[in-house]
Amino acid sequence: MHKVIFDTDPGVDDAMALLFLHHHAEIDLLGITTVFGNATIETTTRNALYLKREWNIDAPVARGAGETFIPHRVSHEPPKFIHGDDGLGNIGVPDVVDVPLDPRPAHRFIVDIIRENPGEVTLVAVGRMTNLANALKEDPEIVSLVKEIVIMGGAFDVNGNVTPAAEANIHGDPEAADIVLTATWPVVVVGLDVTTRTVMTRQQLADIRDAAGKRAELLFDLSQFYIKFYESRVPDGMVVHDACACAYVVAPELFKTRSGAMRVICGGLADGQTIQKPDHMGFGPSDWDNLPSQNACVEIDANAVLKLIHDTIVSVKES
Amino acid sequence: MHKVIFDTDPGVDDAMALLFLHHHAEIDLLGITTVFGNATIETTTRNALYLKREWNIDAPVARGAGETFIPHRVSHEPPKFIHGDDGLGNIGVPDVVDVPLDPRPAHRFIVDIIRENPGEVTLVAVGRMTNLANALKEDPEIVSLVKEIVIMGGAFDVNGNVTPAAEANIHGDPEAADIVLTATWPVVVVGLDVTTRTVMTRQQLADIRDAAGKRAELLFDLSQFYIKFYESRVPDGMVVHDACACAYVVAPELFKTRSGAMRVICGGLADGQTIQKPDHMGFGPSDWDNLPSQNACVEIDANAVLKLIHDTIVSVKES
Repeated sequence: MHKVIFDTDPGVDDAMALLFLHHHAEIDLLGITTVFGNATIETTTRNALYLKREWNIDAPVARGAGETFIPHRVSHEPPKFIHGDDGLGNIGVPDVVDVPLDPRPAHRFIVDIIRENPGEVTLVAVGRMTNLANALKEDPEIVSLVKEIVIMGGAFDVNGNVTPAAEANIHGDPEAADIVLTATWPVVVVGLDVTTRTVMTRQQLADIRDAAGKRAELLFDLSQFYIKFYESRVPDGMVVHDACACAYVVAPELFKTRSGAMRVICGGLADGQTIQKPDHMGFGPSDWDNLPSQNACVEIDANAVLKLIHDTIVSVKES
Repeated sequence: MHKVIFDTDPGVDDAMALLFLHHHAEIDLLGITTVFGNATIETTTRNALYLKREWNIDAPVARGAGETFIPHRVSHEPPKFIHGDDGLGNIGVPDVVDVPLDPRPAHRFIVDIIRENPGEVTLVAVGRMTNLANALKEDPEIVSLVKEIVIMGGAFDVNGNVTPAAEANIHGDPEAADIVLTATWPVVVVGLDVTTRTVMTRQQLADIRDAAGKRAELLFDLSQFYIKFYESRVPDGMVVHDACACAYVVAPELFKTRSGAMRVICGGLADGQTIQKPDHMGFGPSDWDNLPSQNACVEIDANAVLKLIHDTIVSVKES
């Protein structure tokens, strides 16, 4: 079993990732922590509670950061044109969802759960890295107590998606990401190099709905706005970024990784860009020296990942 | 015929590129301009004169910049471990070569030759972009008078070679490169994305020597130190960076290019990194907006380029 904390900013593809974690037989979802990004922290937290209620998820929800690690850093408007005004494709999420929050802030929740399960917790982070950076700041010793960090974010050998240099999750809080990627805990980065190749077609999503019943009906409905955004970007369907990171947790053999120190550019034209120094390449002295090697996903068996997502979500049918 | 000015910092692979330009039947070499980089400006200029004399090249040599476009910028030691103390593989180039220099500085020479041949000059630049930036500063109108700029430099979808982010020619003068890549003249960038795939084996170099005679013997000899540097980096032989840019001039069909605005990161961790905004990708507002689209080489038929280099150099046999 993989004990997982899911750090998320739902977000349409976050919702699919959450349903995947909830349904996968080898995942024990210990908690959901929210962060700003695809929408404000108020909205992403409300959405997490809404999905918890609609999908009968036991794991507690803890509210996380609503602004960047360095306060008052230049920040960016939530991408309402991608995830809708409500962050879930404008399906009409109620303003208030009457489900209690965990009383702790997300970074404290993360520290507590890691300390209660030493060596066992996998942190899957698919939004800005702010909660993780705050957790490291609060308790630096967690680096040796966590099992693995799997993040969706970054772009190494491909362009970004918010600027030519930077991917959205990293661009949204570069300093936090640089802290997370340079800490001495093991990180696997599932970035645009592999996620943009993982496109679920409309038919594949409809197949999941038909086979899985009620829960997947909600997933189908909230994804339609996001699919509209992707109409000009992929031939058919949508990129399932966040679910790729979850797939990595249970099926790392579907990915090829490259090991090397990573840095995040903070400020300037390339603000939020991720750059890896592959272990096998030699350079002169650089700002990547003496930092831990982390793994960047550079290849993915996209069809197998899409099948894994299908099989996992339909494994629990709800009428 | 392609009228070419060769802006160069010889440099071992520069020497091969020069011999290629000198021997190719469709190249009319109008001038050689030198720049600092692989060695100091004194050394690269001396080397250009030496190769001109040894290879009976008619084109004049004009001495160019010995420091970055912005004076006193942080600069870097010449890479003597790659090109030797003398810049030509420690073959024992004489300290003084008794061949006259063109009296003009390189940037003035470039401006004059372009103005004398409106619409006809291809600038092939395989060192730092300092002379080109200085020429643009001296006479901005040359942007509409030049035929094409072909540069060896940069790294788009791959790591750099001096830092994980940056390639040497661009890293050596980022501000100059940003000026050159954002000017409204047509630029083709032949960068590490394609040059590092173009490895001439020891046997292929020996074949050129055997078939071409005396001139290629010098080329063979001066390349041995450079091949030693590459021993830990390629299975056999050496990367022929600069000759790839020359091959593009006469055989662009051996390359696949991608069009889009380009910027160079100036300062910080990614100092000297080249980033393109491909025309076919959509982003929010960015620092790449409203700049000319330039072409980045993203694929190369390396075997065909190596054959072209061979055939060109052996086309003139000298006993």
